Amino acid sequence: MTMKLYGLAMSTCTSNVIGCLHEHGAEFELVPVNLQNGEHKQPAFLAKNPFGQIPALDDGDLTLFGSSCDLLRSQNPKEAALVKTWMEVESQQFRPAISPIFYQSIIVPIMYGGSPNQTIIDETSAKLGKVLDVYEKRLSSNKYLAGDFYSLADLHHLSYIYYLMKTPYGKLINERPRVRAWWEDISSRPAFKKVAADLTLGDKN
Amino acid sequence: MTMKLYGLAMSTCTSNVIGCLHEHGAEFELVPVNLQNGEHKQPAFLAKNPFGQIPALDDGDLTLFGSSCDLLRSQNPKEAALVKTWMEVESQQFRPAISPIFYQSIIVPIMYGGSPNQTIIDETSAKLGKVLDVYEKRLSSNKYLAGDFYSLADLHHLSYIYYLMKTPYGKLINERPRVRAWWEDISSRPAFKKVAADLTLGDKN
Repeated sequence: MTMKLYGLAMSTCTSNVIGCLHEHGAEFELVPVNLQNGEHKQPAFLAKNPFGQIPALDDGDLTLFGSSCDLLRSQNPKEAALVKTWMEVESQQFRPAISPIFYQSIIVPIMYGGSPNQTIIDETSAKLGKVLDVYEKRLSSNKYLAGDFYSLADLHHLSYIYYLMKTPYGKLINERPRVRAWWEDISSRPAFKKVAADLTLGDKN
Repeated sequence: MTMKLYGLAMSTCTSNVIGCLHEHGAEFELVPVNLQNGEHKQPAFLAKNPFGQIPALDDGDLTLFGSSCDLLRSQNPKEAALVKTWMEVESQQFRPAISPIFYQSIIVPIMYGGSPNQTIIDETSAKLGKVLDVYEKRLSSNKYLAGDFYSLADLHHLSYIYYLMKTPYGKLINERPRVRAWWEDISSRPAFKKVAADLTLGDKN
């Protein structure tokens, strides 16, 4: 049975999993979930992810949800511990700082026809800048976040930064030479290029 | 060289790592960090954790930070994927719902001599209740969160729930029979009993 991924290709969380599957040439079918109709809150989807959030992955005898594509994890225990450390940095430091900028700059105008809340953007931009200062230092002694090897710790940053680069706040990346070089490196991977083609939120029609 | 863990035994994040190390009988030395003096924001500590947060783990040739005790992770890839899924549930659903209750009920009165913000407590209690409803259902078909085996996905809940049980909001656990039985099971493990002895925040003097 082909693995099924329930989600939306333009969503940051779904696209992380798609990128990881592409990295490994895994075969899968993307099954769109209609968020507007509340399909993710219906029993059929809740059986796949009881928190009613995309994505969910079903490979026949195992249903997973969240960013559960674990394929890029190193088998070397020390490397794996470093990957885990920097994945935690992404989820606990980076994502809380970048997601409000994404939400205010891209989601609010498109989905709700509203204006971004500049106070929130300014506060979280400052926070994101501090996180990226740590990255700038880290990337002065390591090619990638977990070490000199590409890993899920890098991959999980791709979709959010891709969307950030469509906004004026892309300067937070561009102003930091090592972060910028890292971004140019990881975003040019063929697996991510396939993903980016669907990250269409915020594009002019 | 003995592994060194920089942190505080009464802190939820440090105690998760201590619990994991005890589960494996690992030898380590706990090195206290003086948060009141801002030791965690000084260069010596920032070299161990650039985000200036406890804990940090130093085993001689590798410095890790965050909840980087990976020892309990299953070697079976399907089990590992389930452990990862439920660890993500802990960090993305459970922790954001329980930590404001802990902060308002325990930290605010002790550290700042203030009164808890009841509105925040009520809002996050409702959120935590919904997360625990999902757990109640999950634990009807699995002995532990990731499956019928104890894992880091369970262990990461221990310290926060331990502190919650000192507050009136412990009822959120007690009202749900399967969650309560799971809590009684995991909190009675010898490794956690060693940890709990130091979780003294909120105790009457």
